[in-house]
Order: sequence, then structure tokens, then C-alpha cells
Amino acid sequence: MRNALGRELPDYIDGFGDLHAYGQLTVASLPDKTALPIPSADDNCSKLVPDLRTALKICSVRDGATLSFHHHLRNGDHVMNMVLQEAARMGLRDLRIAPSSIFPVHEPLVRLIEAGVVRTIHTGYVSGPVADSITRGLLAGPAILQTHGGRARAIEAGELPIDVAFIAAPTADDYGNINGVSGPNACGTLGYAMVDARFAKRVVAVTDNLVSYPACPVDITQEWVDLVVKVESIGEASRIVSGTTRITDDFVGLAIAATAAKVIEAAGFIENGFSFQTGAGGISLAVAGFVKNAMQRKGVTGSFASGGVTAQIVEMLEQGLFQTVFDVQCFDLRAVGSYRANRAHQAMSASMYASPAQRGAVVNRLDAMILGAAEVDMQFNVNVTTTANGRLIGGSGGHSDTAAGSKLAIVTTRLTAGTHAKIVESVSTVTTPGASIDVVVTEAGVAVNPLRAELAGRLSAAGIALVPIARLYDLAREASVAGQILKPRDSSTRVVALQQYRDGSIIDVIRAIR
Amino acid sequence: MRNALGRELPDYIDGFGDLHAYGQLTVASLPDKTALPIPSADDNCSKLVPDLRTALKICSVRDGATLSFHHHLRNGDHVMNMVLQEAARMGLRDLRIAPSSIFPVHEPLVRLIEAGVVRTIHTGYVSGPVADSITRGLLAGPAILQTHGGRARAIEAGELPIDVAFIAAPTADDYGNINGVSGPNACGTLGYAMVDARFAKRVVAVTDNLVSYPACPVDITQEWVDLVVKVESIGEASRIVSGTTRITDDFVGLAIAATAAKVIEAAGFIENGFSFQTGAGGISLAVAGFVKNAMQRKGVTGSFASGGVTAQIVEMLEQGLFQTVFDVQCFDLRAVGSYRANRAHQAMSASMYASPAQRGAVVNRLDAMILGAAEVDMQFNVNVTTTANGRLIGGSGGHSDTAAGSKLAIVTTRLTAGTHAKIVESVSTVTTPGASIDVVVTEAGVAVNPLRAELAGRLSAAGIALVPIARLYDLAREASVAGQILKPRDSSTRVVALQQYRDGSIIDVIRAIR
Repeated sequence: MRNALGRELPDYIDGFGDLHAYGQLTVASLPDKTALPIPSADDNCSKLVPDLRTALKICSVRDGATLSFHHHLRNGDHVMNMVLQEAARMGLRDLRIAPSSIFPVHEPLVRLIEAGVVRTIHTGYVSGPVADSITRGLLAGPAILQTHGGRARAIEAGELPIDVAFIAAPTADDYGNINGVSGPNACGTLGYAMVDARFAKRVVAVTDNLVSYPACPVDITQEWVDLVVKVESIGEASRIVSGTTRITDDFVGLAIAATAAKVIEAAGFIENGFSFQTGAGGISLAVAGFVKNAMQRKGVTGSFASGGVTAQIVEMLEQGLFQTVFDVQCFDLRAVGSYRANRAHQAMSASMYASPAQRGAVVNRLDAMILGAAEVDMQFNVNVTTTANGRLIGGSGGHSDTAAGSKLAIVTTRLTAGTHAKIVESVSTVTTPGASIDVVVTEAGVAVNPLRAELAGRLSAAGIALVPIARLYDLAREASVAGQILKPRDSSTRVVALQQYRDGSIIDVIRAIR
Repeated sequence: MRNALGRELPDYIDGFGDLHAYGQLTVASLPDKTALPIPSADDNCSKLVPDLRTALKICSVRDGATLSFHHHLRNGDHVMNMVLQEAARMGLRDLRIAPSSIFPVHEPLVRLIEAGVVRTIHTGYVSGPVADSITRGLLAGPAILQTHGGRARAIEAGELPIDVAFIAAPTADDYGNINGVSGPNACGTLGYAMVDARFAKRVVAVTDNLVSYPACPVDITQEWVDLVVKVESIGEASRIVSGTTRITDDFVGLAIAATAAKVIEAAGFIENGFSFQTGAGGISLAVAGFVKNAMQRKGVTGSFASGGVTAQIVEMLEQGLFQTVFDVQCFDLRAVGSYRANRAHQAMSASMYASPAQRGAVVNRLDAMILGAAEVDMQFNVNVTTTANGRLIGGSGGHSDTAAGSKLAIVTTRLTAGTHAKIVESVSTVTTPGASIDVVVTEAGVAVNPLRAELAGRLSAAGIALVPIARLYDLAREASVAGQILKPRDSSTRVVALQQYRDGSIIDVIRAIR
């Protein structure tokens, strides 16, 4: 045969097969073996479309479609509300939504659930009115609560196929290059969105800071993004990142934090190469302060700090206490600025952070992890999903992932919160299995998981007084108001949410409360 | 049912389906929907294996397997030779190899082809003894010559499934984080390897600079890498990057370059937002110099420069002539240093660079591209694959991709090389179709593709004298030694290589010469 240029070609060649002659193929006609999307840019090489409605139409969003969102704008996010309200106006129904987290700002979602626009929710964390509506049984089926790593795994494994990922983009150009470090709603890294961008069938960037091509730096690159929509505002900056994160100044909290830092040192981890993660709560931040002191005293250089990143961690990086920071999400403006300026402050995707199915997550290399708890029980199981009486207030986020991956997972908690015990016989909801938890640190003593006898020996040798978890349970019960110990709920009540473990299995269920 | 923690769960929930109880799943047992590899790290969280043989065994490499390599170490690369020689010692046969390019240093491959260890080659560029052996018909089947963007497309689309990607890693840690900016064989960005790392079933990092975890910065992250092998040397630094790339100082070459720069300006591209790519050849570099002058004279700030990057481009970035550089491969030490230090000098994957099947490659946004040619013909078709008499000497690399994507694709060439004409009636091999070529610039005049009448008008209006391509052909024929115009080869001769266009179609075939 001859191709379009008149070149003589064989029709078939041994060792190769049939030949496609030049001029006969178009890229769009390639076999769709990996669901690779067709190029969406028009001839002018712009992916800009005028509004969200146009984007939803071009992406062929139909009833029952799955839309994903990320939560780097946290309680200042406008994007999920805008997209879903537009979907409602278009008459779409029965949507499955997969935001990486849901905050009080997403309250309009409640009405969209009631109206049948949203049918199912998959998320890593949910608080506020949406959580309350789930607890009340508003969804037709159960909400699926995932861990951050489990969400990445489910997306990568094809368990949670996403039709369209909407990426709130603090900065974008008209060809889909995105960064989170510039613009009025700069939020820092975009670690959760990276997984959605890689695996969603269609990816739409929504930005209020459209810059000339190419956006620089680029955190999510153009070859993953189909469309770009410019909107007036993607969020409310003051609710996205706090100006500063505050260390606890309460005596009990500081005492718990100091003990947690001693546990890390006694366990032998404050050595060169030490790696560390902690949350943004008051006690967690205080632990970072005590760990910093210990590292400085011993002249130790750590390998990395990871996680959601705060000013405290940035300071440790800048003081040379860590070689690098792996950052899935910036918690404050100092972290945003550090990520913008310091090459040792690196973004990581949710998959790199915590997926159990990838070739190795950062959590697997973590020495010490500081965890919070709503409740801890006699088997060291931890609940960060519900209140003691079963009301949905959160979910794992990275809790189970970091607990499973780290060598030393420390829960720091007071014995009681308000009137009720936090150390209980059996947690109302298991978020993280006790097998992943090594130590519980309270103001009344330190309990080591009996599975970790060697660790208990080290701590005792270092002069840390250990108590059995049962003793903490007794103390907590004594310190709490009588009658606050709730009896197990009726298992015939309807299941309103499933707490998925990072591997996709169900570690517990959440039942309706009216 | 009850799960492993004793929690009571329904077996089935409407809207969700059957529940997997916690404790019953292992991650490895997940359905392999996306061919997501199982985690390969051992319990110590190290992916280090003692040698290449062990890596080949763990990756279950069998006869007929496909192994990929990247060419950022160019003619200093030791990794492909080491891996294939180990495969030969293990008795493996009929391997398909997919290096992004092949250089003279890969001469040992000839004996491995003869011995039946290597059966097929897919590559973007091949020169030296391996190219000669292909021309002679040493391979059982045809070699597949791809464009850089076409190779990325084929890998992403599943047309070229890779069993194991070997990544020559100037720096790596024991968990597979890789960068190209440190170590004795620092080569800069790793753009070609990024695609292999994402899509290969198994990924092996081969390094001579093993650093403590985590390598920082990270160009290819740990979640894509299965194994790490430490070897004595991955390459010979002096052959990887040149200390400096040299601008031509020959009068004819400079005249051609000056004209090419004038064409860009006359076409109206030297304006704010201008984007530019050129190669590392002497004329191409000289064009960059003239373009720099024009940009400075007009006070223009360009958007980006792209491609394989040289000191000339780095200087333009540092002088503020471009906002950013997109770099798939560093051509000299200055580029390596710039990529290491300057956040505006960004890596891009081969897919982001040039794939026609992704959601939009960088080449699509390119204004002006300077291209070389072994031959150009009356239809503006360009040959960079073979000599005039059909001997394999290269291949497209990014030639066809940038020509197709850029708004202004300029071929710069002398009329003759040595004794033979370079402007010919019909190129011996079509690499890039004439439809993609806008202008041919020679020392004897400028020819505009008749398809681009509007462009011809602009150039004429700017005082650039245009000549028909037929006139350049006549002049080249007159200037060349009689008898150098070769007659078409016999189409019954065996096909030894296929020149694939970026969409996977066959644009030409290369036939055996003995």
C-alpha cells in the first residue's frame, strides 16, 4: 500500500503485524485501552470555558455521575458548593460526590441531598451540618468514610471511578497548569487533588487567578487537565489557612505533650535520620516543640517531617532539624510561604503520602506519629469518627494511614472531655485498629500496647512510668460524670455510614441517630 | 457478620453492596483493575537489592519481556549495557527493548542482537553501531522508530506495554526517590523516564549515588519505583553533558541563523508571550542568540522556552527574556545547574512535552521551533532518520512533535552537505511530513510552504526575499557533485525499520543496505 505521502509500505510485517499507514489514523481513534481522554483543547489551544455549566455539559455529566473535589481550601472552599448548585440548576440527580473532606462551609449540600441532587458521599473526613445530616439518615445509602490513603487507593484501583474531578486552583493558566502558591486564595500544596487529576476521566480546574501561560511553578500540569473555568472567587482566604497555628498553653495539654516527646526519645528515635509527623491541634503542636528541643539538645538531623504542615514544622526545617518536608497540605500561611520558596519543602500526592497499594508510601518510613482521639478503648482502638454517643464528627483522614505506617504511633489525649470519659471499654466507632497504636499518653500516665513488650521495656528503662490501659480506663471513668458511659446502640438501627479501613474493608459502621 | 475487631456489620447494604469485613482483605488481594503493582518493599521498608540479576529475577523477567531505558545519560550511559549483559548471562532471549534513544556507547547491543538476546527495538533515535546493524538487517523484525511524543503516547495507550523500566538514577535513596541533579553523573531533568516510571509494570532505579532517605529534591517519587540497585557507575560524566554547547562560528551557518531569526520576527512572533524551542546544534544555538538580540531590542518578555535545554536558553531565562523553561532533558552543565537552582526552570515529562494523545502537550503552545534536516524535499518533507542513501543515522526524537505543534516550524539547513544535495526531489526517508513544516531557511534563500500563503505575505512585507522550494532544489543540485542524486531503492528489499509518526501510523519504512 501507499500512505498519504505516497510512500510504499508493506501491509504487514512479521514481528510487527498490520501497518497503519500515515494519514489514516487520528489520535482520537486510537483504541481506548487505558481510558486516556481525547484532547479537549480547541484549535486555539485554550481550555477556557465560560462557566461551570459549560464545563459540566462538555464533560457529559449525567444523573448518577461521580464528581470529586479536594479540601485544600478547607472551611473556606467555595468550589464544591458552586459546582453542585450549578448541577442542581441543570436538573442533575443522584450524583455521587467524592470530596477528600467536607467542612461546615459545605452546609448547602444538605439541601442538595434532600432534593435528590446528591445521592452518595465518599470522603475522608466530614464535619458540620453535612455530618449531622448523615447522622440523621438523610442519605438514601450509607456515606463511605475513607482514610486519605484509602481514598487514593480506591481511586487508583478503579474502585472509585471519578467522572469529573473539579480542582479548586488558586492559580491556573488557560491550558490547565495549576499551582496553589499564588493568588488571593493560595493554599499551598495540592496533594489530595493530584490523585484525582491523574485518574479522573475528566479534570476541570476552577480558578479565580487566571494567569498568562504558563503558570509557574506548576503543581498539577496541563496534560492532566481538560477544562479551565474562571470564577469570581474560589474561596474565602481567611478560612482556608490560619495565619498562625497555636500551641496549647494549657498546663494539662503541655504535660501530655512533654511526656509524648519523652516517649519518642526513650524509644530511641531521636537520632540522625529521625522522621516525624504531627497534627495541627494544640497538643500535637506542643509535641513538635518538645521534640525540637530534644533534637537540638542531642544535635540530631532528622530525615523528614511529613503531613499537613504547620509553621512549627517549617521552623524545624529552616533550623536544619530536618532535611526535607513532604507536604500533602499546608495548614498555615507560613507553610504556604515555605513551600513556595524552599525546594526542601516538597509536595506529595495523597498516594505518595499514604496509599497502602502503591509501591511504598511516605507513612511507611515514618518513625514517630502523634495522633489525636475522640475515644481510645481497652484494645487501643481509636475513634476519631464519632462522638461517644455515635454522632458523626470527622473520620480518619490520615489517622489510620499514619498509625499503620509509623514505627511509633502515639495517641495523646486527656482522660476526659467535658463530662465524659475518653478512655473507654469499647469505642463507639473504631476508626483506627488498636494493633496500629503503640502508646497512649494521658495526663494520668502512659500505656503501652501489650503487643509492644520491647517498647515497654525501653520506656521503663528510661524512667517513664507505665500504667495498664485498664488503669487509665478506671481513672477516666472516675473523673467523668456518672451516666456518661453509654451502652452499645441497637444494631437493628439503620447504617448511615461505613468507616472504611485503608484497604477498603469495613472497620465499623455508623448508625442513625434521630 | 462480625469483623476481626468484633464489630457487628451487615453483610450487604443497599447502595453499597457486599461488605468486606476488616481483617479479611489484604491489599495484594485487591482486584488488579489498573495493573497497580503490589508493594515490593520488604518489612524494613527498603527496596534495595544487591545487584541487577536479583532485580531481574524479582521482576520475573522472562524470554520475550519488554525492558525500557531512558537516554538522559546519552553517550555516557552505562545502564542499558549493564542490564542487557546481565540478562544475557542469565540466558534470557528475545527481549524487546524500548530505550528512548540509542547512542554509539550502546555498541555492545550489536552482539546481543546477534546472540538472540535482543529481538526487537523501539526507540526515538538511534545512532552509531546499533543503527548500522539495523541498516544491515541484523534484527529479525523491523526496528520501530518513534517520535518522543509518540513513544509517550504508545506507552500511555498500552500499545507499548513495558515489563520493567530501568531508570538510570544520578541520585536515589533506598525507597526509590530519584533525582538527576546530584551525584557524579548528574544529568538534570528525567523527562523521558517519567513516562516509563508511571506506566511500566515494574520500575527499577539503578544508581551510583545512593543517599540517605529521602533524596531531595525528588524528580521521580518513591510510589512509582519497585526496586533500587546500587552499582559502581551508571555512566561516564564527560559524555553525558557537555561542559558547554558551541554556537556555530562558520559564516554560512551564522547567515542562516540570522535569517531564521528574521523570519520569526517578520512573522510577528517577537512579542510578549513569545515561546521558543531550538536544538543543540551549532546553527540552532546561533538562532537562539539572534532571537535573544531581537527580544532585547524589542523589550519583549517571552512566556516559555522548551525542549532539550542549553546554556543559551538558561541565559535567556536568567535575563528575564522568558518567564519559565520547560525542560525534558538538559544538554549541558549550565542547564543542569539552572534546573537544580531555579524554580522557573521546570522539568516536564515526555508526555507533557509532546504526546499527541494527552490533554495538551507543551509543543501545542510553541510559537517558533528551529529544526534541523538531513534532507528536505519539494513537498517540504524532512528526513532526519537516514542518510541520502538510506543508512539509519537518527530518527525523529522530538522533530515531528515540535513541527506539528508549533505555529512556526523553521528548518535551517545548508544547500549541500559534503558532496551531496540536502534539498532534494524526494527525501530518502520521511521523518516529518511537509504539512508540518512552514519555512525552509538556507544560505541561498528562504522558501515558505505554499500551504502558508499568509505567512509568505508577512515575510515578503518585511523585506525577506522568498524563493520557491524548487529553486532551492535546483541550486542544491547544481552545487552538489554529479551522480550524488540517488535513485529510489528497490521496494522489494527487506524492511529493517519503520518510521512511526507520533500517532502510531507508519510514515515511512527503512530498507536493508548490505
